[in-house]
This record gives sequence, structure tokens and C-alpha cells, in this order.
Amino acid sequence: MNYRQVSFQEKMLELFEEIKDEMAIVERELQATLQTPDPFLTETSTHLLKAGGKRLRPAFSLLGGKCANFHLERVLPLAVALELIHMATLVHDDVVDAAMTRRGVPTIKARWGNRISTHIGDYLFAQSLILIASYDEPLIPRVLANTSVKMCEGEIQQISGSFDTEQTVKDYFYRINRKTALLIAASCQLGAVACGAPKEIHFALRRYGHNIGMAFQITDDILDLVAEQRQLGKPVGSDLRQGIITLPVIYALEHSPRRERLRTLILSRDKNEEQIQEAITIIQHCGGIKYSIEIAEKYIWKAKGALRNLTSRPAKKILEAIADFISIRKF
Amino acid sequence: MNYRQVSFQEKMLELFEEIKDEMAIVERELQATLQTPDPFLTETSTHLLKAGGKRLRPAFSLLGGKCANFHLERVLPLAVALELIHMATLVHDDVVDAAMTRRGVPTIKARWGNRISTHIGDYLFAQSLILIASYDEPLIPRVLANTSVKMCEGEIQQISGSFDTEQTVKDYFYRINRKTALLIAASCQLGAVACGAPKEIHFALRRYGHNIGMAFQITDDILDLVAEQRQLGKPVGSDLRQGIITLPVIYALEHSPRRERLRTLILSRDKNEEQIQEAITIIQHCGGIKYSIEIAEKYIWKAKGALRNLTSRPAKKILEAIADFISIRKF
Repeated sequence: MNYRQVSFQEKMLELFEEIKDEMAIVERELQATLQTPDPFLTETSTHLLKAGGKRLRPAFSLLGGKCANFHLERVLPLAVALELIHMATLVHDDVVDAAMTRRGVPTIKARWGNRISTHIGDYLFAQSLILIASYDEPLIPRVLANTSVKMCEGEIQQISGSFDTEQTVKDYFYRINRKTALLIAASCQLGAVACGAPKEIHFALRRYGHNIGMAFQITDDILDLVAEQRQLGKPVGSDLRQGIITLPVIYALEHSPRRERLRTLILSRDKNEEQIQEAITIIQHCGGIKYSIEIAEKYIWKAKGALRNLTSRPAKKILEAIADFISIRKF
Repeated sequence: MNYRQVSFQEKMLELFEEIKDEMAIVERELQATLQTPDPFLTETSTHLLKAGGKRLRPAFSLLGGKCANFHLERVLPLAVALELIHMATLVHDDVVDAAMTRRGVPTIKARWGNRISTHIGDYLFAQSLILIASYDEPLIPRVLANTSVKMCEGEIQQISGSFDTEQTVKDYFYRINRKTALLIAASCQLGAVACGAPKEIHFALRRYGHNIGMAFQITDDILDLVAEQRQLGKPVGSDLRQGIITLPVIYALEHSPRRERLRTLILSRDKNEEQIQEAITIIQHCGGIKYSIEIAEKYIWKAKGALRNLTSRPAKKILEAIADFISIRKF
């Protein structure tokens, strides 16, 4: 297989050209929301923000809004809230996994410890609630409240299911839907809701977001096994190290002739580099990567299908281009 | 000084006699909200719930509602949400402080580790959002969003201000308002809001709740220094151990002739039992406890004053009785 190197960040910027002015305003609003009179609070809460990030969820909400009667001021609080929710989950993930770097810089946990990061995660999330509470449209807080509960369920399932080699493809889909797809679905849908879209439009966008989110996470899970460390910004095989069983692994545990050896490798708590490489080789040789790429492609096809009945406009074209981009990215 | 032993739990039950049927329904609803098809999630998320607790915030919301046009079904989601928010903060506090028991049983952190408790705290909080999002009255989500942000600010200030012997009474009031008073104020106010109370009633209840909350926290901070371990359910002087500087300590650091010795004792990171006792003696001898009791009494007086213009009814009498009870409890 040939893993093409594409700079994700650059390609995304290209796709987001159409909304780059609005994205700059989202960025300024994010900064402004986290300015407080307490210098320590401002420093800790903007730490992750300053490290950058793709701002995928705000972008999806803007594009969702652009499939309806777009007014920036209607989507802006939502766009900022979505990124705050996402950042809150990242900060709490860092508490949990004892991660020491994220987006190339030391994590809040690494710099200030678990106590501060727990509360900064809570703080970022709480700030999002103020923005969400500014909407009169009840669907926005309701969808986000449900999404938040399900995201936590996904995190807990990921922990209780770690190192569990009996889990099924169904368990995996349940988990990545909660971990990734639901918030992206909500971003696409609620951007449109904020701009007064009728049901048939915001439901279609939700379906698009769900399928894109699923494809996105499957792709990420594949890259964790086959990308270059430099490209990934973290060591290859970090899911295997943490006992997180992803789609290629589940496939290999069912289909590889060396599945017993793979199980042993996965269950070993202290894997060395060589064991990680051996596990990856087993997964690749039995077609676990190829199978997962096919599943991701199916989700991308469904995502594009969800847009079918939407009026043709620049935002729709970008959403389609994002789908195409995810399908080719890095392999 | 004579520290009378009163069973807090029993006295509270007596005060809550008027609302005991409603409180039983709140309890059932709390249980029902946390039932899920995932046995591990249900077990971890109901762990703290099962350990009991006074359910003060639900009780305040019911009493607030009873100062207006009370209908249980209008207050119930709020009452449950308030306890979930409170429990979420307790679970996250346990991550932070590495506490091993709470309410006499092992904490979630002690039983399942930091990873699970971080996500269970998030989960409990997210569940509260579903309940809050069911209200059409926008004041309810707005007040609770603002309260949540400020509660986090208080937690962060408590951490960044720990072992800081320069902090002032003003810093202390800022912190305990955020840590305790705001959520109690919101409980009293929003119970009334949920039952359609006009501004003058729910604002008065908010003022009552604020002042009761302040008195409550000051009393707790006094008890941490002077109660019996058995009565407290945790070792005496635990705030001193963690470097949390409370009102009696701030007073002593300003007024005690032995303030330099006290400062040294506070700044020592590994205090033994003897040093804790020596610090407490210094605080008591210079009148730090007496001063703090007087401040708590002032808040109680203000709390009762806030109720002055409310129509006389059983709920008002109970709120007054709670104020009186806090003022005498345990000293």
C-alpha cells in the first residue's frame, strides 16, 4: 500500500478558504471568551487554544449555517461553544491518559497537574454553556446536552473496554459514534438550526456529520497504526499501547491466522517498540487496514448521499470536498 | 467555648419534614436518571448517590418553589439537576485532592481511579444539562451556566491560592461565594422561577440562598478546625493540611501575636498531627474562631432579612429555621 503524505492542516485551510474570514472571527471570539481578570486562569484556560488546532467543529457549524439563511452572529456563539466543548474533552482526556504533549506542546496536565486540568476542562465546558444558553431555539441546548451525555458514555466504554479483545465491530461503532461522530453531527446540524433551517435541511446535515465523523475516526484509527510518527505528532501504535481496540485490530483478531499471537501482544501491558511493530504487521497482513479503509469509504459515500437533496451552493461543495479529502487523506 | 454535638443529618430531616414526600420523589428520580443499560456505567455513576447525602440543594429548590405557585413536576427536573451538578463537583474534587473516602465510603477515585472519576463527573454534569434543557424559562439555564463558570473559577482560585498566606478576607469571600454560595443561591431562586415566581420573590430567595451559603461554608471551615473527627467524618485540620486558607486562619495571620509561627506551620508541606494541633491552638487563642462565628452570624441575619417581604407560609418558616439551625450547629 502507498501512504501518500498530504499536509492535513494545509489542505483543510484550502477547503476552508470560503469561510476564512468567519473562521478568523471565531478565533478572536474564542480568545475573547477566555479573557478574565485572573491572569492564572487566563493563562491555563487559553493554553490549549494557543496551541492551535483545526477548529473542525466551528467550521462545520459555519458550513451548516451556510446551507440555510446564514448570519454570522447567529452561528458565532454556537461555533465558539462547539470548540470549547471539544477542548474540554481534550483537556479531560489528558488527565485521564496522563498524556504529556498535545498539538506539539506540553499539555495542561503536564504543566500544571491533574488538579488544574480537571477544573480547566470543567471551566471550558461551563463557558460553552453560557453561549448555548443565549439561544432561544430549544433544539440547540437539547441536542448538545444529549451529545454531552453520550460522549461521556463513549469515554467510559473506551476505558471499561480497554484491553478487551472480545469486543465486536458493533462495540467499536458505538464508541466512535459517541467519541467523535455525535459532536460533528451536532455541529453540522445546529449551525443550520441557528440559521433557521427547516427540518429536512438540518436533519440531512446531521446525517452528513454523523457519517463524516465516523469516517474521520476510522481514518484516525488507521493512521495511528500506519502513519509516520512525524506526521502523526505522536508515536505510532499509541492506541495499542493504551489497550484501545480499533477497527483494524478487531478485524485482525477475527481473521488473522496469527490472531492468537496478536491477542497475546495486545494483552501485554508493557509493550516494547518491537512488539508494537509485530502487532501492526499482523494487522496489515491479514487485510485489517484495507478492510477499515473500505468501511471508511462507505461512510464517506453515505455522507455525500446525505447532501443529495440540498440546494447546490458553495457550502455544499465544500462539505462534499471535505468528504472526498478524508477518503484520500494520507493513504 | 462549648461545642455542642448535634446530629446534622437528624436535625435536617426534622426541618425537611414538610417536604419529605417530595424529597423521596427527588431521590427516586435521581436513581432513575442514572439507570442505564450499561451495568458498569450505572454502578460507577450511582456510587456516590448511594452513599447518601443531605440533598440540600434539591431541598432548597423545593422550598423556593413553595414560596411561589408550587407544582412538584415543575421543580423536579431542576431539583435532580442541582444534586447532579453538586455530585459532579464532589467527584471532580476527589480526583483533584486524591481523597479516598467521602460520606464514609471509598470515593469513585479510590475504587476506579482518576480516569473513571473524571468521566463520571462529566457524565453526572452532562445528565443535569438534559434536565435543565427541558425548561422553556431561559433564566434557568442562564443562571446555572453562569454559576457553573464561577464555581470553576472558585476551584481554580482555591488551588492557585493554596499555601498563600498573603490572601485577604476578600479573597476568601470571593472563593466561598463561588465554591458554595452561588449554587445554593441558584437553588433557592430557580425553584421559585420554575414555579412562576415574580422577580421580587425569586431575587429575595436568591439573596437568602447567597447568605445562607456563605454562612454554611464559614461554619464548615470553622468545624474543620474545632469539631471532633467522628463528627466531621474526616480528620480535623484537613484544610490546613491541603494549604486551604480559611477565614479563622486569615484572621489569625493578621491578629495573632504568634502569627510568624503560624505562617511557618501553614507553609510546611508535611504537617504532623502535633503541628496541626499547634496551628489550631494559635488560631483559637487569638479569637479567630470567635471572629468567624460572628461573621457567619451576620450572614445568617442577612439571610433572614432577605425573607422579610415574603408572605408567611410553612416554606418561609422552614427557610428561617434552617438559618437558625446553621447559626447554632455544633458550637
